[in-house]
Amino acid sequence: MPGPSKVVAPRTRVAVGVVFIGAIIHSMATGDKPPPTERTDPPRKGLQLESPTIAERDNLSKRESAVTPASPMRLRMEAFIKANQQDIVRTLENLDGQQFQVDTWERPNGGGGISCVLQDGNVFEKAGVNTSVVYGTLPRAAIRQMRVNHKALDPDVESLEFFAAGLSLVLHPINPMAPTVHLNYRYFETANPDGSTNAWWFGGGTDLTPSYLFDEDVIHFHKSIKDACDAHDKTYYSRFKKWCDEYFYVKHRGESRGVGGIFFDDLDETEKDQESLFAFVQSCLGAFLPSYLPIVEKRKDLPYTEKEKQWQQLRRGRYVEFNLVHDRGTAFGLNTPGARIESILMSLPLTARWQYQHEPEKGSREERMVSVLKKPVEWL
Amino acid sequence: MPGPSKVVAPRTRVAVGVVFIGAIIHSMATGDKPPPTERTDPPRKGLQLESPTIAERDNLSKRESAVTPASPMRLRMEAFIKANQQDIVRTLENLDGQQFQVDTWERPNGGGGISCVLQDGNVFEKAGVNTSVVYGTLPRAAIRQMRVNHKALDPDVESLEFFAAGLSLVLHPINPMAPTVHLNYRYFETANPDGSTNAWWFGGGTDLTPSYLFDEDVIHFHKSIKDACDAHDKTYYSRFKKWCDEYFYVKHRGESRGVGGIFFDDLDETEKDQESLFAFVQSCLGAFLPSYLPIVEKRKDLPYTEKEKQWQQLRRGRYVEFNLVHDRGTAFGLNTPGARIESILMSLPLTARWQYQHEPEKGSREERMVSVLKKPVEWL
Repeated sequence: MPGPSKVVAPRTRVAVGVVFIGAIIHSMATGDKPPPTERTDPPRKGLQLESPTIAERDNLSKRESAVTPASPMRLRMEAFIKANQQDIVRTLENLDGQQFQVDTWERPNGGGGISCVLQDGNVFEKAGVNTSVVYGTLPRAAIRQMRVNHKALDPDVESLEFFAAGLSLVLHPINPMAPTVHLNYRYFETANPDGSTNAWWFGGGTDLTPSYLFDEDVIHFHKSIKDACDAHDKTYYSRFKKWCDEYFYVKHRGESRGVGGIFFDDLDETEKDQESLFAFVQSCLGAFLPSYLPIVEKRKDLPYTEKEKQWQQLRRGRYVEFNLVHDRGTAFGLNTPGARIESILMSLPLTARWQYQHEPEKGSREERMVSVLKKPVEWL
Repeated sequence: MPGPSKVVAPRTRVAVGVVFIGAIIHSMATGDKPPPTERTDPPRKGLQLESPTIAERDNLSKRESAVTPASPMRLRMEAFIKANQQDIVRTLENLDGQQFQVDTWERPNGGGGISCVLQDGNVFEKAGVNTSVVYGTLPRAAIRQMRVNHKALDPDVESLEFFAAGLSLVLHPINPMAPTVHLNYRYFETANPDGSTNAWWFGGGTDLTPSYLFDEDVIHFHKSIKDACDAHDKTYYSRFKKWCDEYFYVKHRGESRGVGGIFFDDLDETEKDQESLFAFVQSCLGAFLPSYLPIVEKRKDLPYTEKEKQWQQLRRGRYVEFNLVHDRGTAFGLNTPGARIESILMSLPLTARWQYQHEPEKGSREERMVSVLKKPVEWL
């Protein structure tokens, strides 16, 4: 008899890696308490009074000293994404000439979020750069799901403390010749009852969505990412490019959301040690501005027609379709009671369009764009 | 021990009634064959050669004579929705001054679809009026699901012939003072191996989505529907209004899609006899033009500001959110291989907008609109 676990495993992996962390990171921004069912489970039986939570430990660490390479990965990842958020926001403000609106949440136990959004700018129609840090409790069902990829998780405990931190970014330029870009890097950790690290993993990626294809731009984008990957592992770029092509696929349209990039999840000790993987994620995030900035600088002032703007709007409609219909993180976030909807839907463009049976003209640039989306290209 | 069937039943009912018929009606438009797994099941064991399919019977009937009250309900429903589609399209063309684009599909076995779409009109930004008729085969899993509401279905047969016919309509006016309207009425039937009717039911409804609230318009719309309902059963309006409020709820926003109307599904012999229910659906569809036309005529030329247009665009964004995230028929249709995506997404507006943290001003008309969407109103 064929074991059902073989069928369940791949679906569950994605559900856990993408959806779950997505939802947790999204819902963290609300400051809401977890649902009552989680709360009524006694957390860490018999240890409640003796052992501080990881949130308490981290709060204490932060008060006592600066974050150093000797600090727990939680604090290093938080410091890293926040520093990068500032850098990216400052650089984009310089480019656009307009300021981001900054919204900050604090949670009593140390978690919190910073949403930076620039709307109706000079270069960007809508640009969002968010960081979020969550301390929470995973209920038993979620632990069992996660075990598929993280065998260190004990399936028999009632609940587990967890930590999640991530940076998410979506930039929609005004000029149809300048591509939309998306990026997300995140770190996840669960704690043993004594506060030591139980399981941990990194996930994330970045991908480009042009309305008009400039091959040199796509090659530059992929080359920057590949260089960041190659510095750590020669197999990363091709593995994670493929994963990206598979994930950002608008199934009902039979086309990719864009021209890809990289995507990965569940990178833990079965892949490489924590230090190496953190270094890898640092390189990836560090490669972002050099990968995207030259492209938007080159395209932001190109002349365009009303028809080209409309084509961009139709492509933005497809972006909305992917995010609302297929993106598991968005779907899960929207179904999470108390989630901060505005942070989740920050990824949507300011404006979009749906035209019945629009077909690009034969031999047009629009047709070439679509043909590339129908079949992933090896850009390098 | 609580029986799980109680939990499963309501979810399945909706899944079958809305999703299933939706998907079938959507996918019928493609002319694609059903997936191979259905085809490899021997249909109607031992009877293949002797007994014609319902599609064959209906084709013969249509060749032999006109549709009369003595014809099978399948043919009467088909004739009824097609005649109404023509009426509605002609009336809307008179109002708009622009013509609908008409796309027709025929399927070899007698099913087919007619999509009528008007885009960038004088009154309507986008208007779609579709009919579709499907003859197909239900696999065993679908039959078992449907049994929850239709006990006449035999759970032990390998497959069942079915018939589905429906009219769907979504009108998005240009003027933000004129509301969007949606309507759908459908009939579903399964056949015994000898070609006689096995199970059958009606479903459908209509609902209004304004960007600006004119109470008199909403009252007129609801009153027209209530009159149509009351002529058949005094309990219908209140039951089906409630069902509508529950179905068209944008959960992640905590608000209704619009100001409601009616919605019902699975109306079969446990509700009333077929003749009475067909008469009811005829009254409902007959009430459509009188319920909506006076509203759009009154509002289509009202002056409006750029800001009011933007508010409409934001509300259109919410419409997209409901249809892509929560509407089970759309979701299922998009996940049906080979479905005609353009017909499914015809319901989306031509243009929409997402603005980060947009809040209506205190005491504004926009704020009043939202407050009404937060809590369903008894309009009559």
